[in-house]
Amino acid sequence: MSISNVLADRYASTAMCSLWSAEGRVLLERDYWVAVMKAQRELGLAIPAEAIKAYEKQKGHVDLDSIRERERQTLHDVKARLDEFSALAGHQHAHKGLTSRDLTENVEQLQVFLSLQLVLRKTVALLTRLAKKAEEYKELPITGRTHNVPAQPTTLGKRLAMHGQEILLAARRVEQLLAGYPARGLKGAVGTQLDMLTLFGGDEKKVEEMERRVVAHLGMPEVLDNVGQVYPRSLDFEAVSALVQVGSGVANFAKTLRLMAGMELGSEGFRKGQTGSSAMPHKVNSRSCERITGFQTILGGYLTMVNGLAGDQWNEGDVSCSVVRRVALPDAFFALDGLLETGLTVLGQMEFFPGMIERENSRQMPFLATTTILMEAVKKGAGREDAHEAIKEHAIAVAGALRSGKTEENDLADRLAGDERIGLTKSELDEILGRTKTFLGRATTQVEHFAKETEDWLRRHPEAGAILPEAIL
Amino acid sequence: MSISNVLADRYASTAMCSLWSAEGRVLLERDYWVAVMKAQRELGLAIPAEAIKAYEKQKGHVDLDSIRERERQTLHDVKARLDEFSALAGHQHAHKGLTSRDLTENVEQLQVFLSLQLVLRKTVALLTRLAKKAEEYKELPITGRTHNVPAQPTTLGKRLAMHGQEILLAARRVEQLLAGYPARGLKGAVGTQLDMLTLFGGDEKKVEEMERRVVAHLGMPEVLDNVGQVYPRSLDFEAVSALVQVGSGVANFAKTLRLMAGMELGSEGFRKGQTGSSAMPHKVNSRSCERITGFQTILGGYLTMVNGLAGDQWNEGDVSCSVVRRVALPDAFFALDGLLETGLTVLGQMEFFPGMIERENSRQMPFLATTTILMEAVKKGAGREDAHEAIKEHAIAVAGALRSGKTEENDLADRLAGDERIGLTKSELDEILGRTKTFLGRATTQVEHFAKETEDWLRRHPEAGAILPEAIL
Amino acid sequence: MSISNVLADRYASTAMCSLWSAEGRVLLERDYWVAVMKAQRELGLAIPAEAIKAYEKQKGHVDLDSIRERERQTLHDVKARLDEFSALAGHQHAHKGLTSRDLTENVEQLQVFLSLQLVLRKTVALLTRLAKKAEEYKELPITGRTHNVPAQPTTLGKRLAMHGQEILLAARRVEQLLAGYPARGLKGAVGTQLDMLTLFGGDEKKVEEMERRVVAHLGMPEVLDNVGQVYPRSLDFEAVSALVQVGSGVANFAKTLRLMAGMELGSEGFRKGQTGSSAMPHKVNSRSCERITGFQTILGGYLTMVNGLAGDQWNEGDVSCSVVRRVALPDAFFALDGLLETGLTVLGQMEFFPGMIERENSRQMPFLATTTILMEAVKKGAGREDAHEAIKEHAIAVAGALRSGKTEENDLADRLAGDERIGLTKSELDEILGRTKTFLGRATTQVEHFAKETEDWLRRHPEAGAILPEAIL
Amino acid sequence: MSISNVLADRYASTAMCSLWSAEGRVLLERDYWVAVMKAQRELGLAIPAEAIKAYEKQKGHVDLDSIRERERQTLHDVKARLDEFSALAGHQHAHKGLTSRDLTENVEQLQVFLSLQLVLRKTVALLTRLAKKAEEYKELPITGRTHNVPAQPTTLGKRLAMHGQEILLAARRVEQLLAGYPARGLKGAVGTQLDMLTLFGGDEKKVEEMERRVVAHLGMPEVLDNVGQVYPRSLDFEAVSALVQVGSGVANFAKTLRLMAGMELGSEGFRKGQTGSSAMPHKVNSRSCERITGFQTILGGYLTMVNGLAGDQWNEGDVSCSVVRRVALPDAFFALDGLLETGLTVLGQMEFFPGMIERENSRQMPFLATTTILMEAVKKGAGREDAHEAIKEHAIAVAGALRSGKTEENDLADRLAGDERIGLTKSELDEILGRTKTFLGRATTQVEHFAKETEDWLRRHPEAGAILPEAIL
Repeated sequence: MSISNVLADRYASTAMCSLWSAEGRVLLERDYWVAVMKAQRELGLAIPAEAIKAYEKQKGHVDLDSIRERERQTLHDVKARLDEFSALAGHQHAHKGLTSRDLTENVEQLQVFLSLQLVLRKTVALLTRLAKKAEEYKELPITGRTHNVPAQPTTLGKRLAMHGQEILLAARRVEQLLAGYPARGLKGAVGTQLDMLTLFGGDEKKVEEMERRVVAHLGMPEVLDNVGQVYPRSLDFEAVSALVQVGSGVANFAKTLRLMAGMELGSEGFRKGQTGSSAMPHKVNSRSCERITGFQTILGGYLTMVNGLAGDQWNEGDVSCSVVRRVALPDAFFALDGLLETGLTVLGQMEFFPGMIERENSRQMPFLATTTILMEAVKKGAGREDAHEAIKEHAIAVAGALRSGKTEENDLADRLAGDERIGLTKSELDEILGRTKTFLGRATTQVEHFAKETEDWLRRHPEAGAILPEAIL
Repeated sequence: MSISNVLADRYASTAMCSLWSAEGRVLLERDYWVAVMKAQRELGLAIPAEAIKAYEKQKGHVDLDSIRERERQTLHDVKARLDEFSALAGHQHAHKGLTSRDLTENVEQLQVFLSLQLVLRKTVALLTRLAKKAEEYKELPITGRTHNVPAQPTTLGKRLAMHGQEILLAARRVEQLLAGYPARGLKGAVGTQLDMLTLFGGDEKKVEEMERRVVAHLGMPEVLDNVGQVYPRSLDFEAVSALVQVGSGVANFAKTLRLMAGMELGSEGFRKGQTGSSAMPHKVNSRSCERITGFQTILGGYLTMVNGLAGDQWNEGDVSCSVVRRVALPDAFFALDGLLETGLTVLGQMEFFPGMIERENSRQMPFLATTTILMEAVKKGAGREDAHEAIKEHAIAVAGALRSGKTEENDLADRLAGDERIGLTKSELDEILGRTKTFLGRATTQVEHFAKETEDWLRRHPEAGAILPEAIL
Repeated sequence: MSISNVLADRYASTAMCSLWSAEGRVLLERDYWVAVMKAQRELGLAIPAEAIKAYEKQKGHVDLDSIRERERQTLHDVKARLDEFSALAGHQHAHKGLTSRDLTENVEQLQVFLSLQLVLRKTVALLTRLAKKAEEYKELPITGRTHNVPAQPTTLGKRLAMHGQEILLAARRVEQLLAGYPARGLKGAVGTQLDMLTLFGGDEKKVEEMERRVVAHLGMPEVLDNVGQVYPRSLDFEAVSALVQVGSGVANFAKTLRLMAGMELGSEGFRKGQTGSSAMPHKVNSRSCERITGFQTILGGYLTMVNGLAGDQWNEGDVSCSVVRRVALPDAFFALDGLLETGLTVLGQMEFFPGMIERENSRQMPFLATTTILMEAVKKGAGREDAHEAIKEHAIAVAGALRSGKTEENDLADRLAGDERIGLTKSELDEILGRTKTFLGRATTQVEHFAKETEDWLRRHPEAGAILPEAIL
Repeated sequence: MSISNVLADRYASTAMCSLWSAEGRVLLERDYWVAVMKAQRELGLAIPAEAIKAYEKQKGHVDLDSIRERERQTLHDVKARLDEFSALAGHQHAHKGLTSRDLTENVEQLQVFLSLQLVLRKTVALLTRLAKKAEEYKELPITGRTHNVPAQPTTLGKRLAMHGQEILLAARRVEQLLAGYPARGLKGAVGTQLDMLTLFGGDEKKVEEMERRVVAHLGMPEVLDNVGQVYPRSLDFEAVSALVQVGSGVANFAKTLRLMAGMELGSEGFRKGQTGSSAMPHKVNSRSCERITGFQTILGGYLTMVNGLAGDQWNEGDVSCSVVRRVALPDAFFALDGLLETGLTVLGQMEFFPGMIERENSRQMPFLATTTILMEAVKKGAGREDAHEAIKEHAIAVAGALRSGKTEENDLADRLAGDERIGLTKSELDEILGRTKTFLGRATTQVEHFAKETEDWLRRHPEAGAILPEAIL
């Protein structure tokens, strides 16, 4: 009875799954062993070129059943995979001078490193699409809400850009992490490089060069000097916390779209051909957006797991972290990948209802203009306190009328026009209410800044342009 | 490319995996549909007996590929499973008057409920074995430690019983939870039972009886009155927090065994035929105990996830919890199950080294007896302050000598015998140090209480007696 | 520079603060010491009655500055408080045969125990008020929402009772915890009761009786047999997780009220005399409800802290938990207390806008009735598939029209009346839409069940009836 | 009844407390208001120079009671503080065109920013001291442990440097965060800068310049373009997660020192004049190290809190985060500050026991040399399999003898010398065991790398050199 990983199976992309699949890992390990052998040979160890060739030739033949059978006998997973590879190659030259951790720590870091690169590309893809939508709606006035109630006008594009801003911060975080991501390197059982030093007859220079080459193979920008059996687990914490940050802006966007759907201002839309439930065919549930916030909740759990490892190292290390990392690292990446895939999907199919947005604006705008009305009234000679009191009385009365459900019409302007404490005519008031554009402040300019910054990111990561979400369940 | 659930695949027992496997779930759902049809027929709905028979006959034919294919077409997982079942049976009588949640909420609760029962049985099994070990060592003196340094004597059995006590509290917690675990029941789309009421022509009595029968089928002791689309997610939180509590005592035990291994007082032992690494064949790594503490860290993560759901319901509910529960519920149970399996394994193979325990006692005991020595010295006429000062001087000197590494001999008694401020002869001092039994306080009695209480639990859950751990990797 | 505890200072009630204040703790400790002395005297130890009287007389004189000064000199907080008490009494009989933990563990448990009792009372008070509101609105139809969009009708009262149901489950959880809450008791430095046994000359019966009396003083229902220096920290975890559960239902209610405020269906209201901001006097921000969800987030953090302690005991214990418990225990209680106070306040001032609720119903109800319309159409002879297709077409068209913002009128009935595939007249359709009462299912009955169960709770905890929230900031 | 913040009161430094005290915040706000007024005046608003002078003159007069009294009347904390300041100055020019959030968001960010700077300085101070200790012991051989059991030799200095490496990574993380820390800026109620734009008559350039000047006053390197009412809460998450990372390496060090204390290899030492408990004067409890790990657990809780805010923004924002940030932000900084203070204290007083370290080495070294022995035996002509089998037999026998407690002597070399399958003489074996230096691999070099890197940090942050821990309780 095999139970599949639900995050990988239902939500994560093929690319992310490949990196963390049993087969994918075997391939990374074999690449690594070959890179080690090549470096060792070049630095003078007696490893025949044809042995290395034989290993390389067999790299792609992955038989998981055979490996699992070997593990059942040796009860040692690394040994099982090594024996399999060497048996295929017909040689015994792999893994010389390595402890298991010299393999597994670096390969697992490679999985993290490559996954972070994938995350970054996909985040840039998402930003690019979000920026497009933000520009599309950069001038569409919408009732901005604080405390979930109308506060001041903004534009729909600005609302989208606001979430984009947060995602930009997270993208930078990932970029920084990748730029300084340090490999554990070839450090031996307790981190002193004893075995590699022994292998090279005490030649420190060769040990350093050996490590340099292996880290170059991994593609990581740095290598740690001082470790024990393991690299510091706070590095895993740093990676997962970066994932949480990436998810955060997307989750805020999703949550706001769920709120907008509740007020019929927009909807995450349907896939092509999809309809609502048979009972209620017009009903568009924010399933994808809800899923996005669900993924964010999941990420918080994996964060708790890796946080439980950071600061819990005993001496030179142990494997109390092993089972945790087997779960938390791939699953955190699957969760964020699912979140980004879902986010891309939503960006591709979401829709907004300008009529409803306008309807809300006209209901709320007079309230949102009271500050300006007060200012203008005072300019025209009204007493500040009197005018303020008048506005307060009428605003509360209008709000009461609207909440009675008996009218949709916000007649605040009419009422104020009739109140001599204000001293403004109806047409003056209408003029004020008509200054919609002004009420939007710098929203449009801000959106343009966001779009521009996003373009810079796309220029730096052009491969993001081609990313499309896979079909989701 | 299929990625397996690592917790299920490597650590959880077959019984636990069955409950949460795709196939296991299909079986529970089909049982449920049949139970609903039977109750509906008995309460007067026109469902032919032979239709029900046809469904029952097909219950065991689970073709996951076919179901998956249906889901790809309908994009609705419940509908896919229903269509498959009805197609097999050749009838259309299942799921009458139900919404999807009337099925899924109850079946998922059933998975939780049955899993909790399994947890409880296994916990009692673990307690039983732990009690046996505690009794075996109930009188073996060991140096009790606080702050990881010697504090006062206790017995090895008492140390084990101390962890057992904590596990007993958790077992009670699980038992209570099971005793009042409430089903969501047949409540319809927003919890008002509208559809079931319509189905029974507005007959509230029949709706109540219908629900009573379905809950009886589930075997749960209670049913909720007021729910929305979903049952309160704080109930999932309650279940997972109970799992954390069960794991806690076992993790404390494992952590202490790791510490004892570091001082060579004991070891988690080897499986039959296992040896250490080829490089260090005598080395016994506390891999299983480390894994236990790892599982506990994992549980904390799933707790964070379900905590993220509790208190986040919008109106009558949504599916932002769906992806979280798909992950956190099975995986939390797999993690605790793996923890308990590993715990049972450790209890079956661990060993203690009485020689080393005795060695530590003799090194530390004189320090631990200073309170008694002071008391006796005062009784014999020594000045309290003088005697205290003398003991302090000598204890610090002896500690210094021991820490110099030059001696293993704790000669505190000799030194005190030679100090007239104390006024006790060497043989009097030796007599005091020889009162080992007295120094143990009520440790032995306490262990017996633990053993007795454990027996009561086994009597209440006799099926726990037969539980053996499965082979672990 | 003194920095106050913000949760205590701004949000928690006086009663809760008293339990956890420095002064409150001193009082509990002094009561405890007196209880110990009385029991010791009654069991034969030479403690003069007048000494005990002297201690009792001084109990209330708490001079925190003097205690703090003593701590600065001894660097030992328990010793400082003991010396102060003994100096006040002019005797040296307190703390005989006790280690610090024999005092602090039990007194801290007492703080937890009394705080849980306070939580339970306040929870019952909140349930009582919620039930009253639920009954008030038990028949008011409201558009039930799933995925934050209209799904099926329910009643406002039922919506409130749904949250009440969740709170009831949590109340039961707290009640169970209190009913079995076990004291650590007088167990000595490593849990073997050595010191107390020595004090009573090895008389186990007296040690047991001594402990029995002290636990009776504490008022706790049970005492643990096997502990080390400390009681199992998973017991603190159990307490805090119960608090999370209590908060969960209230937070769900608060979140739903925030959503309703966004749609102008209701509001948490103003305190007497309060108005909105000067700029927008009619604006009612859901500040209190937002605060409630904030408290729930805070509780999750303290849960993580105590979860970090459960399963992390080394040998007989250490104080790595000390600083964590100093923070997490009081602050978790302050947070939940603030949440309940705020919840009570909201229940006292919230308001609903039936006109808006009705407006929403009339906009949505035709959609929510489509299932019934289909059923009736088929009864009257329409083809099931044809009728379904017709409904789908019209529903989507109406939804589109509504979302265009050009109309508020849901004319689905008119459209269906004009479609021969349905075969129902306008008046037949109006009759169906008029069956509001029927569409509510058993909502009203369910609310009555909730109210009745709440009455039982109030009967069991009558002191809850008088609880009023304190004024909040 | 005032309840103090226990983290601030007992553990955090004066400098950190100042930043987060009520008074400290008032001072930061007043500085901010003055900076705003100056910029406004310079950019053409009619604010008299003498008004600004009057405000500046009153900046330092902080009367918290008066402010609290104002808050009780207005129920608005910002307004209370503004009114107080303006009353003191006798002018009404502060806060022009600002919403509350234009003040509070930026000032709270400033608290975070300044606190992070303090954290960085203190971290560098801690690294400097740790490096000194690492260099002192860079050549002292110690038995490296994995799984808490002996694995391979290392040096004590390397063990310290290993933790230093992790702290270095965290320091870099904090430095990066500071280097790009973005202010929210002057953005108005929903982020569109409407009010500031109105104030400057629609002149976008002036609004930009105004914001530039205010951010320059704050000293932050960047400003956000697109925000709502609030800056993204994932930025708070980023700050707290950086704190967790800083604590992680220190906690690992503390945990390892606790383990070493248990084996009498070292101790965190006493403060000058301190002794153990009166009953056991030689007992050195790892209280400070335990406290460090406790702080790390606490940080995990605050991380959960801020994680609960990230991704939970509704529309342009609300205050559901307010109460959480009031608790989590200062308290997370207090906790880490207490951790660093305690860490500095431990580094100043810890001691190691070379005699015990040597004793352990001689007990374990022969086991740790078996790989080398095998290699040399094979070089000398022994059969690999035979020699391996011989080593295995003898190693297990010796381990058994040692664990029997009857001997301290590891006679593996003698036994191997007597086994002809090995073919090495006793003196050859002794020579191998004598190669201690060789067995240490590159440990010493690695320590030197760490020391050098630390020096670079101190050069960049020279003010760290003077930091001393405050006295701890």
